[in-house]
Amino acid sequence: MKISILTLFPEMVEPFLNHSILKRAKDQNQVDYQIINFRDFSQNKHQTVDDTPYGGGAGMVLSIEPIYHALQSIQGVDEAHKILLSPQGNTYHQEQAKRLSNIDHLVLICGHYEGFDDRIRSLVDEEISIGDYVLTGGEIAAMAIVDSVVRLLPNVLGDQDSFINDSFYDGLLDYPQYTKPRIFNQMAVPEVLLSGHHKNIEDWRLEERLKRTKERRPDLYQKYINDKKNK
Amino acid sequence: MKISILTLFPEMVEPFLNHSILKRAKDQNQVDYQIINFRDFSQNKHQTVDDTPYGGGAGMVLSIEPIYHALQSIQGVDEAHKILLSPQGNTYHQEQAKRLSNIDHLVLICGHYEGFDDRIRSLVDEEISIGDYVLTGGEIAAMAIVDSVVRLLPNVLGDQDSFINDSFYDGLLDYPQYTKPRIFNQMAVPEVLLSGHHKNIEDWRLEERLKRTKERRPDLYQKYINDKKNK
Repeated sequence: MKISILTLFPEMVEPFLNHSILKRAKDQNQVDYQIINFRDFSQNKHQTVDDTPYGGGAGMVLSIEPIYHALQSIQGVDEAHKILLSPQGNTYHQEQAKRLSNIDHLVLICGHYEGFDDRIRSLVDEEISIGDYVLTGGEIAAMAIVDSVVRLLPNVLGDQDSFINDSFYDGLLDYPQYTKPRIFNQMAVPEVLLSGHHKNIEDWRLEERLKRTKERRPDLYQKYINDKKNK
Repeated sequence: MKISILTLFPEMVEPFLNHSILKRAKDQNQVDYQIINFRDFSQNKHQTVDDTPYGGGAGMVLSIEPIYHALQSIQGVDEAHKILLSPQGNTYHQEQAKRLSNIDHLVLICGHYEGFDDRIRSLVDEEISIGDYVLTGGEIAAMAIVDSVVRLLPNVLGDQDSFINDSFYDGLLDYPQYTKPRIFNQMAVPEVLLSGHHKNIEDWRLEERLKRTKERRPDLYQKYINDKKNK
């Protein structure tokens, strides 16, 4: 898998790619990252990438030209899946992470400042929002996508089946986890987990997942129940 | 405003705080950031912060002890609003960013690896998820919260009213923006924006916001219409 990231702030993005799971995936040759500062593709002498909005209004608007030329510089860009990060895109969720993890080459475009020229939308295959809140730029959104996708690649997580227990993997939230000490500030680990009785532990965990999902995310719970009925 | 961040990866978080809007807000003394590596509060000689889960299962579980002691080290922690980043939390949205931007001291706890001891939940005031996808750690989620909150502080954005045009600010997505050139690859800027007729431009923008929100986010559109009716 190859991931190309267009940004005005490579120094914000690089540290994320060079730590933890994302670094491990790269060291294993599961993924290759390419960071492109699209300011380098500005065609004017001041290297600006934005300008005032037509029709007036506050703030600056990102121009299409540097994005267009930066995209052209990417090898195999025509076959790549190009994604624009924007609060107006489709809301990202775990099913989309699974889908994107099967694509050979992702290109992520991070806007910044107020907004971008609407014609940039014509250059991409998809527009994604990571949630209903406004960020200064697309960098944090791009990192969320890279992280959620790369950890699903084969052998990237230390333990092969460890993402099977993730929240959202099968539509339910995760069960409560506990580790040492057994008692901390008078809070004890549930007895069943110390029993060594695997069937009971399994039953308890599923029950807790159902209970927790119903309490915290009735929307996900309802979907889970409906999906079960339709099977 | 003060923001304390508990993380195992300070070097992932720092570059974000030292760029763009987040840096500007700090330079203006609008906000002060504190990064705490809770590994420093591990009580054992190997400085581990996690251990195997009670009851068995894949992966490691973050212990409560280093988090507890790291929290204790924060000045004024009892009055601070403590937030745990987790896929099981309440889904974050712009209304919450507005709410958090009025709090004097936020403490953000970033988990990492598989999961965390459930008793950590007893140490916090709130649990937030930035969306229905799984990330390797809470760092990206913490950065999303810091960014979305800090940009709402007074005078942080260059133009005082620039966030009034944000998507979600009033429940609608933003209108399409355009900047130079007027024509790019045969795509032209809409005539109305070149007219200089402010009333027409305003009308067109509102119409586009409504149309776009209805098309892309029927859920938000329905909410907007209902809210209008109830006013």
